[in-house]
Amino acid sequence: METKTDRIKRDIQELARFNATPGRGLTRFSFSPEDKMAREYIKEQMEAAGLKVYQDAAGTVIGRREGTGGSLPCIMVGSHFDSVKNGGNFDGPAGVVTGLEIARVLNENGIKTKYPIEFVALVEEEGGRFGAGLFGSRAMVGKVSEKELAENRDENGVTTGEAMKNFGLDPRSIESAKRLPGSVKAFMELHIEQGPVLEAAGKDIGIVNTIVGLRHYEVEITGRPDHAGTTPMDMRADALVLAAKVITGINQMAKEAGEGTVATVGSLKVSPGATNIVPGRVVFTMDIRSAKEENIQAIIDGAEALLEEGCYGGDLSFSINNKIAVNPVHVPGYMTDIFKEKCEKLGFSYKEMISGAGHDAMVMAEITDSCLIFVPSKDGRSHCPEEWTDYEQIQKGAQLMLEALLEIAEVEEA
Amino acid sequence: METKTDRIKRDIQELARFNATPGRGLTRFSFSPEDKMAREYIKEQMEAAGLKVYQDAAGTVIGRREGTGGSLPCIMVGSHFDSVKNGGNFDGPAGVVTGLEIARVLNENGIKTKYPIEFVALVEEEGGRFGAGLFGSRAMVGKVSEKELAENRDENGVTTGEAMKNFGLDPRSIESAKRLPGSVKAFMELHIEQGPVLEAAGKDIGIVNTIVGLRHYEVEITGRPDHAGTTPMDMRADALVLAAKVITGINQMAKEAGEGTVATVGSLKVSPGATNIVPGRVVFTMDIRSAKEENIQAIIDGAEALLEEGCYGGDLSFSINNKIAVNPVHVPGYMTDIFKEKCEKLGFSYKEMISGAGHDAMVMAEITDSCLIFVPSKDGRSHCPEEWTDYEQIQKGAQLMLEALLEIAEVEEA
Repeated sequence: METKTDRIKRDIQELARFNATPGRGLTRFSFSPEDKMAREYIKEQMEAAGLKVYQDAAGTVIGRREGTGGSLPCIMVGSHFDSVKNGGNFDGPAGVVTGLEIARVLNENGIKTKYPIEFVALVEEEGGRFGAGLFGSRAMVGKVSEKELAENRDENGVTTGEAMKNFGLDPRSIESAKRLPGSVKAFMELHIEQGPVLEAAGKDIGIVNTIVGLRHYEVEITGRPDHAGTTPMDMRADALVLAAKVITGINQMAKEAGEGTVATVGSLKVSPGATNIVPGRVVFTMDIRSAKEENIQAIIDGAEALLEEGCYGGDLSFSINNKIAVNPVHVPGYMTDIFKEKCEKLGFSYKEMISGAGHDAMVMAEITDSCLIFVPSKDGRSHCPEEWTDYEQIQKGAQLMLEALLEIAEVEEA
Repeated sequence: METKTDRIKRDIQELARFNATPGRGLTRFSFSPEDKMAREYIKEQMEAAGLKVYQDAAGTVIGRREGTGGSLPCIMVGSHFDSVKNGGNFDGPAGVVTGLEIARVLNENGIKTKYPIEFVALVEEEGGRFGAGLFGSRAMVGKVSEKELAENRDENGVTTGEAMKNFGLDPRSIESAKRLPGSVKAFMELHIEQGPVLEAAGKDIGIVNTIVGLRHYEVEITGRPDHAGTTPMDMRADALVLAAKVITGINQMAKEAGEGTVATVGSLKVSPGATNIVPGRVVFTMDIRSAKEENIQAIIDGAEALLEEGCYGGDLSFSINNKIAVNPVHVPGYMTDIFKEKCEKLGFSYKEMISGAGHDAMVMAEITDSCLIFVPSKDGRSHCPEEWTDYEQIQKGAQLMLEALLEIAEVEEA
């Protein structure tokens, strides 16, 4: 007979098939053919578990289970199902699959809760396609602007709005994805850790008490595309040389800041991009995170100072645009307490920790009590084909999440 | 009536029409549809000037004019007709058009020379398509390997050999493009300066006495594509942070070296290239030039030291591959003397100078006496849509080149 772990394994493996880069990790951008196939699978599983399935205006898939208490706010459980380019099978899907498994268990056992539950499979959390992540959850808190839909483009030049339209969604109705204050009682997410802490400590579960703040920027430096042979070093306006200073600078600043502060330039493009032409234009991203807001701000200020110094009095200029800004989030104490209590009841080892990654739970904290638990990542690897979490570990996470959900949604004793 | 300057203008403008990026500068990669159309135009002009037209195995277009002296070595006159991506209308074509104009004047005036003359329009000098430039001249001196034809690829993954085959050439016969020692008496090239020196000095002509040495490298740094949020700064293997150190380092070293030394990173690609993933792999080029070979070597050594230091004891590794290496070249004194004498005869102002750019004349110096003259570049700009040289200046250059050619090819007095 199929065990609960088998069912989780099957869900993960089935979802991994909907992949734009087979053999080179999982790539599943939102509003793509792979998204379409994956969401069909999720919907089928939700329906089989007795959920009422619908999509919100952002394209997030939702399976609703009514409560016994009439018109009460819902508890949301879930995570995202998109993937970065050439990523792994667990970042996002582990939490979506946890929701599917809990829905099955509730259905099979005829469990009733006072509060309704909505199992969610969110879209474009990674920002892999349009550069601005946490899309599904931002739509739920009313933080997706018309400007974003019209201006953010994928690498083929397709805007978010156009991609949604081609996918059968109506970008003009994005506002309707917004959840009213008081309509959501709690948001509960399971995610893989994507770091080395739990494995090193030998723990089953990470109970997150703080999610780091996160800011994404796009920086453009404009210089002059001179001939690399005939232009003396002191007459150049080399955009890449200045970009290199910023890359080195923010790396050093993050190392010195401590408190889990990290700074990364992950994407950088050079124009015209020929061996024998001085770079006339460089566009790059900055991803800066910390448990302390002031650390993030200090690094941004440092980067701007380097850019201003580099452009002073010369032929270089720059622009810097903020794409995402989320403050550090603290999980309510009653929620971490419930997880600790349930871990002890279930005999799972756990560790309270900071999340170094931004998650949909962080965005949802703007409108509701939001919590996040981690399951271990092998070798701490993520966003790569080697990303791995044992299915048994996900199953333990699902068991814990079910116990906590029943308490928050107020299970009716049989 | 059409003047000689008008004819030069027409040639430049006609060639500029064969362009892959109209409105965004001239882009004409070798073995492309634009190359095909441009070479048809060049062949027509050559034939109209009474030349016998053929192509060598590398695809270089050659128009031959026999001499009266029987089986003597030829004098070559010309330059290249490919262009970098989004470049200008003069880099290369100015010298090709000079050859066409000289051929017309010789033909119209029934001038006879003892030595045969070959007017050449060389291919892929820029390396814009396959990363390895000076292709047509390297083929003439036997420096294009089968390995290069099989391994160098354009951005669509097409190898040089495949592109040649698709173009109707036979890459297996590349050896036949090689000129035997003693078969070429001289190589004479006119090129735009691509720098600010002549314009600033108010001179008509630059007579080059030294062409800087040039080396192109491709560097690959391999790290680990970790999650940008959950991977502490001290546990990363960030390929771009190390690349930034090399970019800054070689820039500084070139500034300190002096003697016309320049170092440029013009192309750089980051993988996977997402905002929230630590760069796992970076591939970039280094273009290093100097009138002194030891300056070039010192910068390469410095770059390697930075790479070794950055990879020491960690999870980063690197490879560095030389793509082009040409030593500094000195133009024979009798050739610069002829140009000076003819400038004085014609009343043209001139300046002896170093060429900071590599040119086909540099490669041809391996097998023959090779010389190079410059015409002024407006604002020193090149490899960009703004590249400009007045047609009158090119016409002056063509007049000078004709006078020098008649002396070297030994004109027969009427």
